[in-house]
Amino acid sequence: MILEVAILDIKPGLATEFETTFKIASTIIASMSGYISHELQRCIETPNRYILLVHWQKLEDHTIGFRQSPEYQQWRSLLHHFYQPFPTVEHYEVVLHNSSNYD
Amino acid sequence: MILEVAILDIKPGLATEFETTFKIASTIIASMSGYISHELQRCIETPNRYILLVHWQKLEDHTIGFRQSPEYQQWRSLLHHFYQPFPTVEHYEVVLHNSSNYD
Repeated sequence: MILEVAILDIKPGLATEFETTFKIASTIIASMSGYISHELQRCIETPNRYILLVHWQKLEDHTIGFRQSPEYQQWRSLLHHFYQPFPTVEHYEVVLHNSSNYD
Repeated sequence: MILEVAILDIKPGLATEFETTFKIASTIIASMSGYISHELQRCIETPNRYILLVHWQKLEDHTIGFRQSPEYQQWRSLLHHFYQPFPTVEHYEVVLHNSSNYD
């Protein structure tokens, strides 16, 4: 399993519109082959900052399967104009995971 | 629930030692009040880069409960010398979370 991580800085004044649009765009990514889960979280300390975390079965499900798909063009046209600067996306593999009994 | 996020860049040559030490340090954070779960993941694209994700019940469980505890001094002495530069830590709140049926 691969974790895609992107810190998203949204243009001033567009955070609410971004959240609404992201919910629509979520149906696109959730329909892709190899998709496991995703979450969008809003930063407490930095206004207009979000983190996107997407779990994929393997790296190529994102870098090839999604990014080279027609669906990615819809994702881009919905979301990319909100970002400033354009985000860096990185991928991670788990080293350690621990949960309390209450997770 | 709050998500603590830190991108950790480790000094060259120390990644293996960092991972071993992190596993020891994990018992410290996992024992704290308000701790829910944590994971350490290794970046595929950037050598010596990790992401630490910690779920806390509320913000103050991390910023006050953990950081002002004696246990945090142990955590610091085990881990802080591995970082270069010293990481920025931010906290996030969920906007949207979605899973496939296979999550």
